[in-house]
Amino acid sequence: MKPIEEQLDIIRRGAVEVIDEAELKKKLERSVATKTPLKVKAGFDPTAPDLHLGHTVLLMKLKQFQELGHRVIFIIGDFTASIGDPSGKSETRPPLSREQVEKNAETYKQQVFKILDREKTETVFNNDWIGRMTPADIISLSAKYTVARMLERDDFSKRYRDGRPIFIHEFMYPLLQGYDSVHLKADIEIGGTDQKFNLLVGRDLQRDHGQEPQVVITMPLLEGTDGVQKMSKSYGNYIGINEPPKDMFGKVMSISDTLMIRYHELLSDITAVELERLKEDLASGAAHPKAVKMRLGKELVSRYHSKEAAEEAAGEFDRVFGKKETPDEVETREVAWDADGTAWLPKALVDAGVIASTSEGLRLIRQGGVSVDGEKVASTDFKLSKGGEKLVKVGKRRFVKLV
Amino acid sequence: MKPIEEQLDIIRRGAVEVIDEAELKKKLERSVATKTPLKVKAGFDPTAPDLHLGHTVLLMKLKQFQELGHRVIFIIGDFTASIGDPSGKSETRPPLSREQVEKNAETYKQQVFKILDREKTETVFNNDWIGRMTPADIISLSAKYTVARMLERDDFSKRYRDGRPIFIHEFMYPLLQGYDSVHLKADIEIGGTDQKFNLLVGRDLQRDHGQEPQVVITMPLLEGTDGVQKMSKSYGNYIGINEPPKDMFGKVMSISDTLMIRYHELLSDITAVELERLKEDLASGAAHPKAVKMRLGKELVSRYHSKEAAEEAAGEFDRVFGKKETPDEVETREVAWDADGTAWLPKALVDAGVIASTSEGLRLIRQGGVSVDGEKVASTDFKLSKGGEKLVKVGKRRFVKLV
Repeated sequence: MKPIEEQLDIIRRGAVEVIDEAELKKKLERSVATKTPLKVKAGFDPTAPDLHLGHTVLLMKLKQFQELGHRVIFIIGDFTASIGDPSGKSETRPPLSREQVEKNAETYKQQVFKILDREKTETVFNNDWIGRMTPADIISLSAKYTVARMLERDDFSKRYRDGRPIFIHEFMYPLLQGYDSVHLKADIEIGGTDQKFNLLVGRDLQRDHGQEPQVVITMPLLEGTDGVQKMSKSYGNYIGINEPPKDMFGKVMSISDTLMIRYHELLSDITAVELERLKEDLASGAAHPKAVKMRLGKELVSRYHSKEAAEEAAGEFDRVFGKKETPDEVETREVAWDADGTAWLPKALVDAGVIASTSEGLRLIRQGGVSVDGEKVASTDFKLSKGGEKLVKVGKRRFVKLV
Repeated sequence: MKPIEEQLDIIRRGAVEVIDEAELKKKLERSVATKTPLKVKAGFDPTAPDLHLGHTVLLMKLKQFQELGHRVIFIIGDFTASIGDPSGKSETRPPLSREQVEKNAETYKQQVFKILDREKTETVFNNDWIGRMTPADIISLSAKYTVARMLERDDFSKRYRDGRPIFIHEFMYPLLQGYDSVHLKADIEIGGTDQKFNLLVGRDLQRDHGQEPQVVITMPLLEGTDGVQKMSKSYGNYIGINEPPKDMFGKVMSISDTLMIRYHELLSDITAVELERLKEDLASGAAHPKAVKMRLGKELVSRYHSKEAAEEAAGEFDRVFGKKETPDEVETREVAWDADGTAWLPKALVDAGVIASTSEGLRLIRQGGVSVDGEKVASTDFKLSKGGEKLVKVGKRRFVKLV
């Protein structure tokens, strides 16, 4: 095992809060002294089977713990998913069917082992113990917390104040998540910042059961590719870990230079020392942002696909956007030619499904964003003439062959 | 079965609310038409094994339903008792142990069958079905109501406003009580006015489960012998149904004339017609309040003990308070005689444990409230002389023999 200070450095990286550091140090000291790995818990509701990079922030932290020799307990909240974590939500979530939960859990597992070491991960399902509780157990668990204390939670208090419904079972969620920690005797629990309340409930319940409270580590919610909102499928700013190599790589290349640093901190395998050097090199101009982004894109594609796929995606990207070449595969679409064998370009692009309206076409042409066979289109009156393939480039990266 | 209007008259007697009458009428019509008795539910938490007359208001109403040919389901809330009904409470109630619940339930049953017809009563324990619910069942039950709706309840909203804790399990109580109605497919539920919220939850949950909602009948909370606060052991204004005949009779005789009418309405077996006649006779002076009270006292002692015990208690009461005779059994207490063989009466009464202080003695003597061997004591200096028994009457009904 690594020395405590070194472990602490790795654990702290990217974390928002460690509650609290003194307790963590004590646990690490005991762990080193007794050669006993710490039990690090993280729970995932199998509600969103398509993981995106936002989900992997926690997984990367768990991976670091695995590399430090600790024991990772990966909880699939198959019971709690039937409630739906209300954390940070402004509305009650619809419950999932048992069938859906099981299907999602399978997909989940397939994806997380792209990051975690399967051999060193204990995967458990919380229905295994929560499902065995008696009604009296549940009642006595719900007797541990007051309504007022639950309503202090930001999201609940806001919903209550706004007159939006909070259903009583939503109060059970944090208690059951906390009970997981009691059942597993967790030393550490990791979660997003939106999970802080639930994680602290675990500490309370452990104390209540005579256990040493778990250390709580909160990780930031990763910003999406827009760099503004948190990564989420519903904001359309996500990079799914099952996305094709080219899409994944392209999306990484599209992020801002600032976000690139953040992604390195939270998603990359590079060490803290390497990360510092990277920042310095970018500041001094010794490193070029595009090259750094390509390095990150390759790292991520390698992790979720393969090294070959990463090289290929990077090569392809370079050909299209670096050396101004067209990509290998460009779709061919048919144009509705006028009787005279011509087609007004904006209309042809709408017909081909490339853009939504002719006015979008006019705007793009005026901005100099459309070229045909390598020539920028200068006039909004531009017409194509029938015969052969026309390679049309729209915006920065969209190519289409019109026939 | 009696005609519907007649049934309605009996059901309405003494009730505070019937929610709602039209539904009740429809149920009764169907019951008469199909010769199917209605299922009338009342739940009791086996928390207070010594029943007093306050508890019997509901039981008397159930008895009327039995006499009308309906089916009474008497629920002993052995599961819900482990939560403690928060209705009307300003604090969380401590849970009862399983052992205590079972013991109380036994005592409960022994007492209620002094009123209800054992043969026509179905006694059930709600742990039989609640105890078999899965954690998922409990969660989905708790998903039926919102926090805001629970907090609208008077007692909860007051506690929340005052910053006094409400524990989450207390929100489960009304839901589980309501679920009892779903499980039993109750047609009618009877409860005290303090139960109204819980009873209405039953209606909601039945609707939610596709059942016709139960009719809710609320009965008043019986005033204690002081005529002011509700009858309760903790206020010391109760008449226990297991109290000795003489005590029970004496307490009935001590109530006010107004309260006597109320007790008749809620506790007596006399018909509505007889009750009306009684009121008229009292108003016209044709009936004397004391005689009416004695009739009630005898009815109640007969019900909870025997006709003989009732006659004896009435005779004894009459001897003591009516014909100015002393009761059959008067306790003998020893006096600390002074060296001269005398004892100052106020001090002797304090020594004998009859009064708390000599100043109370002085006050009673000044009010003409103390007599020795039938003679009113006129002076606060009065001294007893040693020798033989002195029969001392203090206040209206306390007798003691001093030696």
